[in-house]
Amino acid sequence: MVFSSRIVLAVGAHPDDIELGCGGTLYKSVQSGAKVIALYMTRGGKMTDTDVRMKESTEAMKILGVHHVYFENFPDTEVPFSHEAISCLEGYATKYRPNVILTHSINDTHQDHRQVAWLSMSAFRNIPKILAYETPRVMPAAFSPTYFVDISGCSQVKWEALKCHVSQNEKRYLAYESMINLCSFRGSQAGVKEAEAYEVVRYLENSLI
Amino acid sequence: MVFSSRIVLAVGAHPDDIELGCGGTLYKSVQSGAKVIALYMTRGGKMTDTDVRMKESTEAMKILGVHHVYFENFPDTEVPFSHEAISCLEGYATKYRPNVILTHSINDTHQDHRQVAWLSMSAFRNIPKILAYETPRVMPAAFSPTYFVDISGCSQVKWEALKCHVSQNEKRYLAYESMINLCSFRGSQAGVKEAEAYEVVRYLENSLI
Amino acid sequence: MVFSSRIVLAVGAHPDDIELGCGGTLYKSVQSGAKVIALYMTRGGKMTDTDVRMKESTEAMKILGVHHVYFENFPDTEVPFSHEAISCLEGYATKYRPNVILTHSINDTHQDHRQVAWLSMSAFRNIPKILAYETPRVMPAAFSPTYFVDISGCSQVKWEALKCHVSQNEKRYLAYESMINLCSFRGSQAGVKEAEAYEVVRYLENSLI
Amino acid sequence: MVFSSRIVLAVGAHPDDIELGCGGTLYKSVQSGAKVIALYMTRGGKMTDTDVRMKESTEAMKILGVHHVYFENFPDTEVPFSHEAISCLEGYATKYRPNVILTHSINDTHQDHRQVAWLSMSAFRNIPKILAYETPRVMPAAFSPTYFVDISGCSQVKWEALKCHVSQNEKRYLAYESMINLCSFRGSQAGVKEAEAYEVVRYLENSLI
Amino acid sequence: MVFSSRIVLAVGAHPDDIELGCGGTLYKSVQSGAKVIALYMTRGGKMTDTDVRMKESTEAMKILGVHHVYFENFPDTEVPFSHEAISCLEGYATKYRPNVILTHSINDTHQDHRQVAWLSMSAFRNIPKILAYETPRVMPAAFSPTYFVDISGCSQVKWEALKCHVSQNEKRYLAYESMINLCSFRGSQAGVKEAEAYEVVRYLENSLI
Amino acid sequence: MVFSSRIVLAVGAHPDDIELGCGGTLYKSVQSGAKVIALYMTRGGKMTDTDVRMKESTEAMKILGVHHVYFENFPDTEVPFSHEAISCLEGYATKYRPNVILTHSINDTHQDHRQVAWLSMSAFRNIPKILAYETPRVMPAAFSPTYFVDISGCSQVKWEALKCHVSQNEKRYLAYESMINLCSFRGSQAGVKEAEAYEVVRYLENSLI
Repeated sequence: MVFSSRIVLAVGAHPDDIELGCGGTLYKSVQSGAKVIALYMTRGGKMTDTDVRMKESTEAMKILGVHHVYFENFPDTEVPFSHEAISCLEGYATKYRPNVILTHSINDTHQDHRQVAWLSMSAFRNIPKILAYETPRVMPAAFSPTYFVDISGCSQVKWEALKCHVSQNEKRYLAYESMINLCSFRGSQAGVKEAEAYEVVRYLENSLI
Repeated sequence: MVFSSRIVLAVGAHPDDIELGCGGTLYKSVQSGAKVIALYMTRGGKMTDTDVRMKESTEAMKILGVHHVYFENFPDTEVPFSHEAISCLEGYATKYRPNVILTHSINDTHQDHRQVAWLSMSAFRNIPKILAYETPRVMPAAFSPTYFVDISGCSQVKWEALKCHVSQNEKRYLAYESMINLCSFRGSQAGVKEAEAYEVVRYLENSLI
Repeated sequence: MVFSSRIVLAVGAHPDDIELGCGGTLYKSVQSGAKVIALYMTRGGKMTDTDVRMKESTEAMKILGVHHVYFENFPDTEVPFSHEAISCLEGYATKYRPNVILTHSINDTHQDHRQVAWLSMSAFRNIPKILAYETPRVMPAAFSPTYFVDISGCSQVKWEALKCHVSQNEKRYLAYESMINLCSFRGSQAGVKEAEAYEVVRYLENSLI
Repeated sequence: MVFSSRIVLAVGAHPDDIELGCGGTLYKSVQSGAKVIALYMTRGGKMTDTDVRMKESTEAMKILGVHHVYFENFPDTEVPFSHEAISCLEGYATKYRPNVILTHSINDTHQDHRQVAWLSMSAFRNIPKILAYETPRVMPAAFSPTYFVDISGCSQVKWEALKCHVSQNEKRYLAYESMINLCSFRGSQAGVKEAEAYEVVRYLENSLI
Repeated sequence: MVFSSRIVLAVGAHPDDIELGCGGTLYKSVQSGAKVIALYMTRGGKMTDTDVRMKESTEAMKILGVHHVYFENFPDTEVPFSHEAISCLEGYATKYRPNVILTHSINDTHQDHRQVAWLSMSAFRNIPKILAYETPRVMPAAFSPTYFVDISGCSQVKWEALKCHVSQNEKRYLAYESMINLCSFRGSQAGVKEAEAYEVVRYLENSLI
Repeated sequence: MVFSSRIVLAVGAHPDDIELGCGGTLYKSVQSGAKVIALYMTRGGKMTDTDVRMKESTEAMKILGVHHVYFENFPDTEVPFSHEAISCLEGYATKYRPNVILTHSINDTHQDHRQVAWLSMSAFRNIPKILAYETPRVMPAAFSPTYFVDISGCSQVKWEALKCHVSQNEKRYLAYESMINLCSFRGSQAGVKEAEAYEVVRYLENSLI
């Protein structure tokens, strides 16, 4: 593949969204030689101390091998659809020139997730590949994955990353079994042991090989 | 990309469907080192002599650099949804072990196209990547492309391939302008000069790079 | 609920489809006092002896407590969309007067599954509730479940039923892990431990209570 | 049905939305022994005095037998998607622990209706059943009902409730004929005399009986 | 409108489908000066004598003012998707050169209706306007009308036409109330007293005026 | 056509949106005798001087023969969904009583476009015809055109109008080739030389002729 995804920018609304949605993919991309950047649009301060949340996600991203981690400071639960927010995302696109964006889906019930999905469409309109990952809040009947990344053998690392979120550990979807079930179910749909699933927003290839 | 598409199997209902839908992609894949196989399910005998049609497509595929060209003999305009037709496709999957299938879309108004699309879903259920190409008969409101292959600079070769279909040359959609318009329009949607557009049926990647 | 589902008719294309798609639901319905009928449209003879397949499904249904099991003899892999097939289904509707039908989804890639789904729509047009269950062959991006039956605590019984299919035991989707993963994933979407997921074709209630 | 809908919370943007969308269902639920709560997010003050509007809806709900009626005070025509609005809805969920939510559809053209639909998805993410009712402002081509409540014999009571809205009586959709036409049309789709139609957002059952 | 629909071809699977789906539209088109042709693909012989059915529809069409009525003889309940059936439809297109086709919807649960819908897409691929009408068998959640013809004041004539179907008079959907409810409901969606609703398959205009 | 579109109101978010989306249609409508009004909701001041932008669009509209051109002053890139914005649009509907509205699509990735699309649905709920035009920012997989206006022979005039936007001339989608490709591609889908494509939001006809 001449035009491969050498630079990956993952965007999430809150600390833990990226880990949950595409942690295994990021790990595999790093292992394959990609440069990976993670960007959180909020610091998740609605329920927990923002410093704690940022520290947890920073550790999680370190485990996955992510090269740069950023935290913007848009308000938790009220991420705006503003010119400022779009410009913010455009800034990262300009700085890193990513080939692929991993972001939220517009078919997600969480308002911040949906907002980040729409912001991404506007800000990254010139990036060749945009994929939308799955969260525990996507609508089962509307989230329509057709793209799968084989993460067989990486679930343990993904789990190590998720475990960093000690402050959130009462959340059911952060349990080991939940993670394994989802990876295995998406894997079975794609014909592999474990996978992460994505909706394709736009995927431009240079060739099929 | 560790798990790249080294072997591509393109399936079409009639001679000229593959050239129109994914000719540029096949050419680029060959140039990139892929092994490419083209399979026509009919010989298009309803309106024209089948020998002429097969000869024309064979020449077209030669221009694109396709390595193997096959013509099955299912009845033109009445391709069946039969166990025999599925087995036939499975045979090619077994023989060549393709990584990627390029086939018709279920959102196509031509009965044979739609039938080949459904047959492909059954027969290629274990192939990691299935993409559905565009024909002049897809439903404008239902065909939903999210995957684009950049074929900038290859439109001349695609045109050379299409020109082989002398017996069909009264068909408007085989005109040079039609081809250029479509490539350019799909290119503009993807941010490049010229592209071919696909619906993603299933796309399994090993990593993003 | 005045107008509750006292009689349930589950329809599947092949022996094992019903067990996989709605085995837990049938078990719970029986436990709750419903009368349950299972109907297979083929005897699955394409790959295995039909007597073996019928015996296995009969045993599986017995474990689930299903009251009546029927096997029609439409051709495996080529279930027709015929007047005869519709009449056959109508016969069961007339005989048992079911309140709810559990059947295949039209968003399934297996031709027989899709055919049974469409047949059900025609034959059961006057039955108040029609739900479409999930199989390993549904299209991940098109199957759109909004209805979930809580089968927490019943996965062991479902597994006992699936284990009856000794002749099919090389099939990955009949493994214990696959079943648990699916139940748990659908459960997590519905907020319970384990669930089976359905598309709602039509659901007529007498009241919400 | 072990896990029946003993407590129903109906949410609407403006006085008269609930009556129109699910008045018959509420009446039948009350008759069947359910506890029913109605919550209006605005007092509809854009065109008419809010006291009048509240009085009219209170009377209407009394006729239907609804047990509790609440009016929040979010701004008419500009219901926000805010943390405050979500918290407000969550408060009712905590207080009443409803089994089923009846709310607006996201396929509605009225901005307040759509907003309430999205707010409901966020606030009621742990409630087992969420159904979206029909208003005169849903998009005909997008509102996709699969769930019907048989309200045969209750249209007269529904009409009595609608008649309370004297201040709105120039509105065509509050006419007797409009109500009867809609009930009858939805009934004909479900095979009964009169019905109210719903989209299923999520429906978790304990068993089919 | 320079390029108006001077010639209308209405296609239906069985005697009474056209009357039910677009009877008011045909009447208004005739009144406005259009030439109207009705074509039934079967003679409806499954349940009733075909001569009776043909006589009834001929009378109904006479009442609506339709200029030509044809009955093909494809098998009732088993209309094929064959080259012969497509050619048959193409023959009418060649003979009458219609500007607009009124036909069944692919979102209909009746197999013959669905088949005629797909046949129409193939056969009429060069006709500028194709609209799909509503029958009692369309899927409520999938039929997506955006096009409405105002038939206010014509319901009495439509009823006279429907009354001709004496042999079918036990069918609920042929009752006066059903017809009025549907016309009124669709009218209310379009802002007029009575309307017939259509899905737009393709609509080519020469200008907006 | 008794009830033809004598008055056309085209609404766009920014100067150049209307020209791009429906310039040819407006020109043909004017030529056919319609009264045409163009309304821009912003003056596009984010990147360029608003006076320049307004002057350019005014000139473009003059070339197309549009009778009235208006510029509201909602903030570029942050068009609100407010009561004020809806009232503003309602004012134009009241003043001009248009038969047809041409506006943005809700399947557009640009936030202002999407906002104007939703505003139009609310404000023009009583206008018989609403069509949504295409911009370079619509989602390729979601924009679903079924309505086409034949603009064959008008592309030169459309180009003259687009050329007025000197301040935007570095934008690829304002190039001559882009315009021709799009018109030709949409024309090929509709069977004519050049066309503009629309989604049908609602289209009420008085008859088919």
